[in-house]
Amino acid sequence: MENTTGTETSYPLFLQIYEFIRNRMERGEWKAHDKLPSIRGLAEELKVHRLTVFKAYRQLAEDGKVYVKDKSGYYVSQGGSPSLVAMDGADLTMAAALNSNRLSDIQRLPAQYQFSQALIDPGLLPNLFLSEYVKKVFDLYPKVMGTYSSVQGDEELRETLSLHFREHHRLQLSREELLITSGAQQAINLVADILLGPMDSILVERPTYSLAMDIFRRKGARLVPVTITPEGYDLAEVEDLMARHKPRLFYMNPTHHNPTGYTVPAWQRKLLVELAERYHCLLVEDDPFRDIYFAEPPPLPFFAYDTEGWVIYISSFSKYVAPGLRICAVACRYPLMERLITAKALADNGTSLLNQKIFLHYYTSPRLQQHLGKLRIALQVHKEIMEEELAGTGWEWTAPQGGLNLWVKLPEQLKVEALFRASLRESIVFVPGEICDALGEMKSWVRLSYSFVNEITLREGMRRLTALANQIE
Amino acid sequence: MENTTGTETSYPLFLQIYEFIRNRMERGEWKAHDKLPSIRGLAEELKVHRLTVFKAYRQLAEDGKVYVKDKSGYYVSQGGSPSLVAMDGADLTMAAALNSNRLSDIQRLPAQYQFSQALIDPGLLPNLFLSEYVKKVFDLYPKVMGTYSSVQGDEELRETLSLHFREHHRLQLSREELLITSGAQQAINLVADILLGPMDSILVERPTYSLAMDIFRRKGARLVPVTITPEGYDLAEVEDLMARHKPRLFYMNPTHHNPTGYTVPAWQRKLLVELAERYHCLLVEDDPFRDIYFAEPPPLPFFAYDTEGWVIYISSFSKYVAPGLRICAVACRYPLMERLITAKALADNGTSLLNQKIFLHYYTSPRLQQHLGKLRIALQVHKEIMEEELAGTGWEWTAPQGGLNLWVKLPEQLKVEALFRASLRESIVFVPGEICDALGEMKSWVRLSYSFVNEITLREGMRRLTALANQIE
Repeated sequence: MENTTGTETSYPLFLQIYEFIRNRMERGEWKAHDKLPSIRGLAEELKVHRLTVFKAYRQLAEDGKVYVKDKSGYYVSQGGSPSLVAMDGADLTMAAALNSNRLSDIQRLPAQYQFSQALIDPGLLPNLFLSEYVKKVFDLYPKVMGTYSSVQGDEELRETLSLHFREHHRLQLSREELLITSGAQQAINLVADILLGPMDSILVERPTYSLAMDIFRRKGARLVPVTITPEGYDLAEVEDLMARHKPRLFYMNPTHHNPTGYTVPAWQRKLLVELAERYHCLLVEDDPFRDIYFAEPPPLPFFAYDTEGWVIYISSFSKYVAPGLRICAVACRYPLMERLITAKALADNGTSLLNQKIFLHYYTSPRLQQHLGKLRIALQVHKEIMEEELAGTGWEWTAPQGGLNLWVKLPEQLKVEALFRASLRESIVFVPGEICDALGEMKSWVRLSYSFVNEITLREGMRRLTALANQIE
Repeated sequence: MENTTGTETSYPLFLQIYEFIRNRMERGEWKAHDKLPSIRGLAEELKVHRLTVFKAYRQLAEDGKVYVKDKSGYYVSQGGSPSLVAMDGADLTMAAALNSNRLSDIQRLPAQYQFSQALIDPGLLPNLFLSEYVKKVFDLYPKVMGTYSSVQGDEELRETLSLHFREHHRLQLSREELLITSGAQQAINLVADILLGPMDSILVERPTYSLAMDIFRRKGARLVPVTITPEGYDLAEVEDLMARHKPRLFYMNPTHHNPTGYTVPAWQRKLLVELAERYHCLLVEDDPFRDIYFAEPPPLPFFAYDTEGWVIYISSFSKYVAPGLRICAVACRYPLMERLITAKALADNGTSLLNQKIFLHYYTSPRLQQHLGKLRIALQVHKEIMEEELAGTGWEWTAPQGGLNLWVKLPEQLKVEALFRASLRESIVFVPGEICDALGEMKSWVRLSYSFVNEITLREGMRRLTALANQIE
């Protein structure tokens, strides 16, 4: 092909043509019943052999995307966007939210009683004295605003974090085994980027963090659910799934799990790391709620038990340090770390240096530890208010030992979808459980976050919610 | 398939299996001459029909990735990692840099005379008074550190930018048509993410920004080069390429182009937008050097001529405002903007709010305009120093009207690779032209950035460089 360069993908040629045509149909450039270019014509245009185009067309026909008419005419099949029934504004938003099955759509819904955001009320975070740290950063690093960070992240920050992890979580790691990312979302994205391709099986908890599932699905991965209970996992079930499906990775949130609040006990962690090693299944441990415990600190991370490099540890500080900073650290061994750094370079070429330096100085301050203590107490109070309001409803939940949510089971006769609609009209939002489930079931469960609204709004909102439920039943 | 969920990819099943196997080979899980699983065995494992696995194996054999032995045995073909010859440390680094053909590897090379970084010397940026703006941000927004930005970006910032663009560049846009990203790199990534798939043709200038080419190639796109000269493009050539290749997009950097410094004249901009409309080829206009002009402001952006939504405008402020902040704005029309926002949500769920607010207040300050004036003068001085040192060498270049680089042609007999090696040993780095060329040619050209080192180092480095060249010739 003159004046063009080869590509880096190594799909067979006819498949690339298949994809090429499918993309055009999907973009609406070729609509239902449009005639595809002639085989000869397309072959000339793409500078490939006619048989290659023919093969692609046949495959498209086999897959029902095109149909054949006349002797050699291929036509775009009738696709199907589901017909849109006219609805009023609120219905549209809600329908969109329910249909898209996307957490982010639900979280965008404006509401006075926001139980859908597993975030911390900014009023509970130490905003006032943060400005002092920021000033300090400018004194220490006058050129910080004029400088880019390296792709892997500020060395001083990585050094500090590696020491911190060693001291507090018994993780053996050097600063070279840490990558700074712009939040946990990006970390999950990069991991998926370097590890997953179409048809790769992965294990996910059931239920789990819905945005992570979106990322994995976009890569074409097959999600195999693993049950999580207040007692953790069933290791026999996990081993069986690993043996049968040979998953590439297990995406887990085993400490103050989102949405359930469960925590996997220490004895399982050691054994599961051994399973990971045996079945060559990387454990991707997402750990954003570690420091939000009520009674006592949780078990050490899985990463602490890993000696052979089978755990990738995502430690996001955003939620309770300074969400506005979006700083996350990913720990893993080489050569995996090398590939993550490459992916990060292409994604955004390095996280903002200013944010890293602010985070560094704030995170290591005694003020933060003091503050975390207060935050834990405040969140426990919030949790208890929510639990008080739920007492006597007949709704079921296991009291979490940390984290930001209650995972609540509604009685059979109470339909979550109906409750969701009714709540929305009363300016109350929560997360329907089916969004957190890889199988799209768990329709009797809901996630209620107690962390975002203040105490008064919390109590009021819960009263309205439970009152609504009584009306609906 | 029990307990698993479908994926979102719609490749034919046997192709997904093809990919699945290819990935394993690439990761080294199956090495050369390893026997593939039996067709029956794999079919059971993946819960697909045996004929589907058979089809995948046959395709792999056809493509030479596996070979058949015995009656029904498939084996991994001998692949080829090029053999690594033992080299000393410096050679390895350099060989890696040259072999990888990656700009980022070259830029990682430590050197005293850094002519490879198209960045601005932090010493020329207004660091000292930036801290005042940061303090101001905390006064105005006490909860800024505790708050996440929306995915699309801070509304106040988008509103301000849309007004700014309207005033200064005559762009008609509302704040809804702007997306804030974490730098231009991420912007290019998101655009590639939503627009490109395997076999899509795209136009790129020749030469162009090398990291952008990396991103496009990773998507499987075919790069079709468009010549850029001091006079701009050859519109007849562009039209011909559009008609023949039907490119999805044209990635361009038409104002103070990197690496050449050329600027596409106004009369071509209008016509090219019309071509884009006619041939349904999106223009992706990357414009990071607009404000770095020497004599007079450059022509209006292509986006200013676009009425039908065929231009995506990437306006990155990082380089001369505050690289540390990594703030970029992408302007485009709906429904494209909706898709970009979705991609941004998955990528990192929104840029740090703190950075956006700092940028907002700094960018709108009179101080910045003052500063930009001084910066332009300083960079012009740098440029002139470099040009002085090049006078009399016989090397050729067109003096740029803005930007950060000189794009210089070396005499035939002077081999760039030899000069690169020799320079590296003298702690001098620059960018070999072939890295910026989609065709990997342009081997007589080099990009020399005058923006990063101070005046003294600049002159010294150029003297050493030209002296070296004399020795080599």
